[in-house]
Amino acid sequence: MDSLSQEQKEYLKSTIRKIADFPKPGVLFSDITTLLRDSKAFNLLMEHLYQRYKDRNLDYVVGIDSRGFIFGAALADRLGVGFVPARKSGKLPYTTISQEYLLEYGSSKLEMHIDAFKPGANVLLVDDVIATGGTAKAACELILKLGANLVEMAFVIDIGIGGLKELKGYAPIYVALED
Amino acid sequence: MDSLSQEQKEYLKSTIRKIADFPKPGVLFSDITTLLRDSKAFNLLMEHLYQRYKDRNLDYVVGIDSRGFIFGAALADRLGVGFVPARKSGKLPYTTISQEYLLEYGSSKLEMHIDAFKPGANVLLVDDVIATGGTAKAACELILKLGANLVEMAFVIDIGIGGLKELKGYAPIYVALED
Repeated sequence: MDSLSQEQKEYLKSTIRKIADFPKPGVLFSDITTLLRDSKAFNLLMEHLYQRYKDRNLDYVVGIDSRGFIFGAALADRLGVGFVPARKSGKLPYTTISQEYLLEYGSSKLEMHIDAFKPGANVLLVDDVIATGGTAKAACELILKLGANLVEMAFVIDIGIGGLKELKGYAPIYVALED
Repeated sequence: MDSLSQEQKEYLKSTIRKIADFPKPGVLFSDITTLLRDSKAFNLLMEHLYQRYKDRNLDYVVGIDSRGFIFGAALADRLGVGFVPARKSGKLPYTTISQEYLLEYGSSKLEMHIDAFKPGANVLLVDDVIATGGTAKAACELILKLGANLVEMAFVIDIGIGGLKELKGYAPIYVALED
Protein backbone atom coordinates (compact mmCIF):
# COMPACT_ATOMS: atom_id res chain seq x y z
CA MET A 1 0.00 0.00 0.00
CA ASP A 2 2.41 2.66 -1.25
CA SER A 3 -0.29 5.20 -1.97
CA LEU A 4 -3.98 5.56 -1.21
CA SER A 5 -6.58 4.50 -3.78
CA GLN A 6 -8.41 7.29 -5.62
CA GLU A 7 -11.52 6.39 -3.61
CA GLN A 8 -9.64 6.63 -0.30
CA LYS A 9 -8.18 9.98 -1.33
CA GLU A 10 -11.62 11.34 -2.24
CA TYR A 11 -13.02 10.11 1.05
CA LEU A 12 -10.23 11.68 3.10
CA LYS A 13 -10.44 14.95 1.16
CA SER A 14 -14.17 15.06 1.89
CA THR A 15 -13.34 15.16 5.62
CA ILE A 16 -11.10 18.23 5.24
CA ARG A 17 -12.98 21.51 5.65
CA LYS A 18 -12.17 24.41 3.37
CA ILE A 19 -12.23 27.83 5.03
CA ALA A 20 -12.27 30.94 2.86
CA ASP A 21 -10.16 33.97 3.81
CA PHE A 22 -8.17 32.32 6.62
CA PRO A 23 -5.73 33.38 7.93
CA LYS A 24 -6.15 36.38 5.60
CA PRO A 25 -8.37 37.49 2.69
CA GLY A 26 -7.89 35.50 -0.50
CA VAL A 27 -6.53 32.34 1.14
CA LEU A 28 -8.56 29.10 1.05
CA PHE A 29 -7.42 27.27 4.19
CA SER A 30 -7.49 23.46 4.54
CA ASP A 31 -8.84 22.69 8.00
CA ILE A 32 -7.59 19.23 8.97
CA THR A 33 -9.31 19.27 12.39
CA THR A 34 -12.41 17.79 10.73
CA LEU A 35 -10.32 14.86 9.48
CA LEU A 36 -8.73 14.36 12.91
CA ARG A 37 -12.01 14.33 14.85
CA ASP A 38 -13.34 11.65 12.45
CA SER A 39 -11.93 8.43 13.91
CA LYS A 40 -12.46 6.48 10.69
CA ALA A 41 -10.64 9.05 8.54
CA PHE A 42 -7.82 9.58 11.05
CA ASN A 43 -7.31 5.83 11.37
CA LEU A 44 -7.32 5.26 7.60
CA LEU A 45 -4.67 7.94 7.08
CA MET A 46 -2.44 6.73 9.92
CA GLU A 47 -2.74 3.08 8.85
CA HIS A 48 -1.76 4.11 5.33
CA LEU A 49 1.31 6.04 6.54
CA TYR A 50 2.26 3.13 8.80
CA GLN A 51 2.08 0.65 5.91
CA ARG A 52 4.11 2.98 3.69
CA TYR A 53 6.94 3.44 6.19
CA LYS A 54 7.01 0.27 8.30
CA ASP A 55 9.78 -1.41 6.28
CA ARG A 56 11.94 1.65 5.68
CA ASN A 57 14.23 1.15 8.68
CA LEU A 58 13.35 4.51 10.20
CA ASP A 59 14.92 5.54 13.50
CA TYR A 60 13.01 8.79 14.06
CA VAL A 61 10.04 10.76 12.82
CA VAL A 62 10.46 14.55 12.92
CA GLY A 63 7.24 16.58 13.21
CA ILE A 64 7.07 20.31 12.50
CA ASP A 65 5.57 22.68 15.12
CA SER A 66 2.70 22.30 15.65
CA ARG A 67 0.24 20.40 13.43
CA GLY A 68 3.10 18.19 12.28
CA PHE A 69 3.27 16.96 15.89
CA ILE A 70 -0.17 15.37 15.50
CA PHE A 71 0.57 13.17 12.48
CA GLY A 72 4.28 12.79 13.25
CA ALA A 73 3.88 11.58 16.84
CA ALA A 74 1.08 9.15 15.99
CA LEU A 75 3.19 7.74 13.16
CA ALA A 76 6.34 7.45 15.31
CA ASP A 77 4.27 5.61 17.92
CA ARG A 78 2.87 3.20 15.33
CA LEU A 79 6.34 2.56 13.91
CA GLY A 80 7.90 2.11 17.36
CA VAL A 81 10.55 4.78 16.67
CA GLY A 82 11.50 7.99 18.44
CA PHE A 83 9.69 11.29 17.86
CA VAL A 84 11.64 14.54 17.44
CA PRO A 85 9.97 17.97 17.31
CA ALA A 86 11.27 20.78 15.07
CA ARG A 87 10.11 23.88 16.92
CA LYS A 88 9.59 27.57 16.50
CA SER A 89 12.21 29.81 18.05
CA GLY A 90 12.61 29.79 21.84
CA LYS A 91 10.49 26.72 22.58
CA LEU A 92 13.19 24.06 22.98
CA PRO A 93 14.94 24.18 26.35
CA TYR A 94 18.34 22.58 25.59
CA THR A 95 21.10 23.71 23.20
CA THR A 96 19.72 24.06 19.67
CA ILE A 97 20.74 24.69 16.12
CA SER A 98 18.47 27.01 14.21
CA GLN A 99 17.57 27.78 10.61
CA GLU A 100 15.95 30.96 9.37
CA TYR A 101 13.08 30.87 6.88
CA LEU A 102 11.25 33.61 5.07
CA LEU A 103 7.72 34.70 5.83
CA GLU A 104 5.63 37.01 3.70
CA TYR A 105 6.96 39.90 5.75
CA GLY A 106 10.22 39.29 7.58
CA SER A 107 11.53 35.91 8.69
CA SER A 108 11.32 33.35 11.47
CA LYS A 109 13.47 30.53 12.85
CA LEU A 110 13.01 26.80 13.26
CA GLU A 111 15.06 24.97 15.89
CA MET A 112 16.10 21.45 16.83
CA HIS A 113 18.09 20.15 19.78
CA ILE A 114 21.75 19.49 18.93
CA ASP A 115 21.44 15.95 20.31
CA ALA A 116 18.10 15.11 18.69
CA PHE A 117 19.47 12.12 16.75
CA LYS A 118 22.02 9.39 16.95
CA PRO A 119 24.61 9.96 14.17
CA GLY A 120 23.57 8.49 10.82
CA ALA A 121 19.97 7.95 11.93
CA ASN A 122 17.27 7.36 9.32
CA VAL A 123 14.73 10.15 9.59
CA LEU A 124 11.29 10.84 8.13
CA LEU A 125 10.03 14.43 8.14
CA VAL A 126 6.26 14.88 8.61
CA ASP A 127 3.95 17.87 8.36
CA ASP A 128 0.25 18.31 7.65
CA VAL A 129 0.26 20.78 4.78
CA ILE A 130 2.86 21.85 2.25
CA ALA A 131 2.36 25.52 1.40
CA THR A 132 5.40 27.62 0.42
CA GLY A 133 7.74 24.92 1.74
CA GLY A 134 9.67 27.41 3.85
CA THR A 135 9.40 25.68 7.22
CA ALA A 136 9.87 22.21 5.73
CA LYS A 137 13.02 23.42 3.94
CA ALA A 138 14.35 24.80 7.23
CA ALA A 139 13.61 21.43 8.86
CA CYS A 140 15.50 19.60 6.07
CA GLU A 141 18.52 21.85 6.60
CA LEU A 142 18.48 21.17 10.35
CA ILE A 143 18.11 17.40 9.93
CA LEU A 144 21.06 17.29 7.51
CA LYS A 145 23.20 19.56 9.71
CA LEU A 146 22.62 17.13 12.56
CA GLY A 147 24.18 14.38 10.46
CA ALA A 148 21.03 12.33 9.93
CA ASN A 149 19.89 10.59 6.77
CA LEU A 150 16.66 12.18 5.53
CA VAL A 151 14.81 9.22 4.02
CA GLU A 152 11.66 11.02 2.85
CA MET A 153 9.29 13.91 3.59
CA ALA A 154 5.60 13.13 4.05
CA PHE A 155 2.75 15.64 3.91
CA VAL A 156 -0.98 15.06 4.11
CA ILE A 157 -1.87 17.70 1.51
CA ASP A 158 -0.17 20.11 -0.88
CA ILE A 159 -2.04 23.36 -1.44
CA GLY A 160 -0.18 23.93 -4.71
CA ILE A 161 1.59 27.22 -4.16
CA GLY A 162 5.11 26.10 -5.02
CA GLY A 163 6.32 24.25 -1.94
CA LEU A 164 7.25 21.07 -3.81
CA LYS A 165 9.70 23.01 -6.00
CA GLU A 166 11.25 24.67 -2.96
CA LEU A 167 12.00 21.27 -1.41
CA LYS A 168 13.54 19.61 -4.46
CA GLY A 169 16.89 17.92 -3.91
CA TYR A 170 16.61 17.23 -0.18
CA ALA A 171 14.84 13.88 -0.26
CA PRO A 172 11.88 12.19 -1.95
CA ILE A 173 8.61 13.99 -1.19
CA TYR A 174 5.36 12.13 -0.53
CA VAL A 175 1.96 13.83 -0.49
CA ALA A 176 -0.74 11.44 0.73
CA LEU A 177 -3.73 13.25 -0.78
CA GLU A 178 -2.12 14.39 -4.01
CA ASP A 179 -4.45 14.23 -7.02
CA MET B 1 -2.35 -1.80 34.18
CA ASP B 2 -3.98 1.22 35.82
CA SER B 3 -0.71 2.83 36.82
CA LEU B 4 2.95 2.28 36.03
CA SER B 5 5.12 0.26 38.41
CA GLN B 6 7.61 2.18 40.55
CA GLU B 7 10.39 0.73 38.38
CA GLN B 8 8.71 1.87 35.16
CA LYS B 9 8.19 5.35 36.62
CA GLU B 10 11.84 5.60 37.63
CA TYR B 11 12.93 4.46 34.18
CA LEU B 12 10.68 6.97 32.39
CA LYS B 13 11.73 9.78 34.73
CA SER B 14 15.37 8.97 33.96
CA THR B 15 14.66 9.75 30.28
CA ILE B 16 13.32 13.25 31.07
CA ARG B 17 16.03 15.92 31.03
CA LYS B 18 16.01 18.63 33.66
CA ILE B 19 17.01 22.09 32.44
CA ALA B 20 17.84 24.78 34.97
CA ASP B 21 16.64 28.36 34.44
CA PHE B 22 14.32 27.68 31.49
CA PRO B 23 12.26 29.49 30.36
CA LYS B 24 13.45 31.95 33.03
CA PRO B 25 15.87 32.06 36.00
CA GLY B 26 14.80 29.91 38.94
CA VAL B 27 12.68 27.46 36.95
CA LEU B 28 13.75 23.80 36.61
CA PHE B 29 12.20 22.74 33.30
CA SER B 30 11.25 19.13 32.49
CA ASP B 31 12.40 18.45 28.92
CA ILE B 32 10.27 15.61 27.56
CA THR B 33 12.01 15.60 24.14
CA THR B 34 14.56 13.14 25.55
CA LEU B 35 11.73 10.76 26.47
CA LEU B 36 10.12 11.13 23.03
CA ARG B 37 13.31 10.46 21.05
CA ASP B 38 13.82 7.25 23.07
CA SER B 39 11.62 4.75 21.25
CA LYS B 40 11.56 2.33 24.20
CA ALA B 41 10.45 4.99 26.68
CA PHE B 42 7.92 6.59 24.30
CA ASN B 43 6.43 3.19 23.52
CA LEU B 44 6.22 2.17 27.20
CA LEU B 45 4.38 5.38 28.09
CA MET B 46 1.95 5.17 25.17
CA GLU B 47 1.25 1.47 25.77
CA HIS B 48 0.51 2.28 29.41
CA LEU B 49 -1.88 5.11 28.50
CA TYR B 50 -3.55 2.86 25.92
CA GLN B 51 -4.10 0.10 28.48
CA ARG B 52 -5.44 2.60 30.99
CA TYR B 53 -8.01 4.09 28.62
CA LYS B 54 -8.90 1.34 26.14
CA ASP B 55 -12.04 0.24 27.98
CA ARG B 56 -13.32 3.67 28.98
CA ASN B 57 -15.61 4.17 25.98
CA LEU B 58 -13.83 7.33 24.88
CA ASP B 59 -15.00 9.14 21.75
CA TYR B 60 -12.29 11.80 21.56
CA VAL B 61 -8.93 12.73 22.98
CA VAL B 62 -8.30 16.48 23.36
CA GLY B 63 -4.64 17.58 23.26
CA ILE B 64 -3.50 21.01 24.43
CA ASP B 65 -1.39 23.21 22.10
CA SER B 66 1.27 22.12 21.46
CA ARG B 67 3.11 19.38 23.40
CA GLY B 68 -0.26 17.89 24.32
CA PHE B 69 -0.70 17.21 20.60
CA ILE B 70 2.18 14.72 20.73
CA PHE B 71 0.83 12.45 23.47
CA GLY B 72 -2.83 13.18 22.71
CA ALA B 73 -2.71 12.37 19.01
CA ALA B 74 -0.67 9.18 19.50
CA LEU B 75 -3.14 8.05 22.17
CA ALA B 76 -6.21 8.89 20.05
CA ASP B 77 -4.67 6.89 17.20
CA ARG B 78 -4.01 3.89 19.46
CA LEU B 79 -7.54 4.05 20.84
CA GLY B 80 -9.10 4.45 17.39
CA VAL B 81 -10.95 7.63 18.44
CA GLY B 82 -10.97 11.18 17.09
CA PHE B 83 -8.35 13.76 18.05
CA VAL B 84 -9.36 17.34 18.89
CA PRO B 85 -6.84 20.15 19.42
CA ALA B 86 -7.37 22.90 22.01
CA ARG B 87 -5.38 25.78 20.53
CA LYS B 88 -3.92 29.11 21.37
CA SER B 89 -5.80 32.16 20.16
CA GLY B 90 -6.14 32.70 16.41
CA LYS B 91 -4.90 29.29 15.28
CA LEU B 92 -8.21 27.53 14.59
CA PRO B 93 -9.81 28.54 11.28
CA TYR B 94 -13.52 27.82 11.90
CA THR B 95 -15.92 29.34 14.47
CA THR B 96 -14.55 28.87 17.98
CA ILE B 97 -15.41 29.32 21.61
CA SER B 98 -12.63 30.69 23.75
CA GLN B 99 -11.62 30.73 27.38
CA GLU B 100 -9.22 33.19 28.97
CA TYR B 101 -6.53 32.01 31.37
CA LEU B 102 -4.06 33.92 33.47
CA LEU B 103 -0.36 34.10 32.78
CA GLU B 104 2.23 35.48 35.14
CA TYR B 105 1.76 38.85 33.49
CA GLY B 106 -1.51 39.38 31.65
CA SER B 107 -3.65 36.64 30.16
CA SER B 108 -4.09 34.47 27.09
CA LYS B 109 -6.89 32.54 25.43
CA LEU B 110 -7.46 28.90 24.57
CA GLU B 111 -9.89 28.02 21.77
CA MET B 112 -11.82 25.05 20.43
CA HIS B 113 -14.05 24.72 17.37
CA ILE B 114 -17.76 24.97 18.20
CA ASP B 115 -18.38 21.67 16.38
CA ALA B 116 -15.42 19.78 17.84
CA PHE B 117 -17.56 17.04 19.43
CA LYS B 118 -20.75 15.15 18.94
CA PRO B 119 -23.13 16.06 21.81
CA GLY B 120 -22.59 13.95 24.93
CA ALA B 121 -19.25 12.62 23.70
CA ASN B 122 -16.84 11.00 26.16
CA VAL B 123 -13.66 13.02 26.20
CA LEU B 124 -10.18 12.56 27.68
CA LEU B 125 -8.00 15.66 28.09
CA VAL B 126 -4.23 15.12 27.62
CA ASP B 127 -1.21 17.33 28.18
CA ASP B 128 2.44 16.68 28.88
CA VAL B 129 3.06 18.68 32.03
CA ILE B 130 0.80 20.08 34.72
CA ALA B 131 2.26 23.36 36.00
CA THR B 132 -0.12 26.07 37.28
CA GLY B 133 -3.07 24.28 35.69
CA GLY B 134 -4.23 27.44 33.92
CA THR B 135 -4.39 26.13 30.36
CA ALA B 136 -5.79 22.75 31.42
CA LYS B 137 -8.52 24.53 33.40
CA ALA B 138 -9.39 26.62 30.33
CA ALA B 139 -9.55 23.39 28.29
CA CYS B 140 -11.89 21.81 30.87
CA GLU B 141 -14.21 24.84 30.67
CA LEU B 142 -14.30 24.63 26.87
CA ILE B 143 -14.96 20.89 26.82
CA LEU B 144 -17.86 21.27 29.26
CA LYS B 145 -19.28 24.30 27.39
CA LEU B 146 -19.33 22.17 24.24
CA GLY B 147 -21.61 19.69 26.04
CA ALA B 148 -19.12 16.84 26.25
CA ASN B 149 -18.54 14.47 29.16
CA LEU B 150 -15.02 14.98 30.52
CA VAL B 151 -14.06 11.46 31.62
CA GLU B 152 -10.57 12.19 32.95
CA MET B 153 -7.51 14.40 32.52
CA ALA B 154 -4.15 12.71 31.92
CA PHE B 155 -0.74 14.33 32.31
CA VAL B 156 2.70 12.80 31.97
CA ILE B 157 4.22 14.76 34.86
CA ASP B 158 3.20 17.23 37.57
CA ILE B 159 5.86 19.76 38.47
CA GLY B 160 4.20 20.40 41.82
CA ILE B 161 3.38 24.09 41.72
CA GLY B 162 -0.33 23.85 42.49
CA GLY B 163 -1.94 22.80 39.23
CA LEU B 164 -3.72 19.78 40.71
CA LYS B 165 -5.58 22.01 43.17
CA GLU B 166 -6.59 24.40 40.38
CA LEU B 167 -8.20 21.55 38.44
CA LYS B 168 -10.17 20.00 41.28
CA GLY B 169 -13.84 19.36 40.59
CA TYR B 170 -13.71 19.09 36.80
CA ALA B 171 -12.92 15.40 36.45
CA PRO B 172 -10.55 12.77 37.86
CA ILE B 173 -6.90 13.70 37.28
CA TYR B 174 -4.27 11.13 36.32
CA VAL B 175 -0.54 11.85 36.44
CA ALA B 176 1.44 8.98 34.89
CA LEU B 177 4.78 9.73 36.56
CA GLU B 178 3.49 10.85 39.94
CA ASP B 179 5.61 9.68 42.86
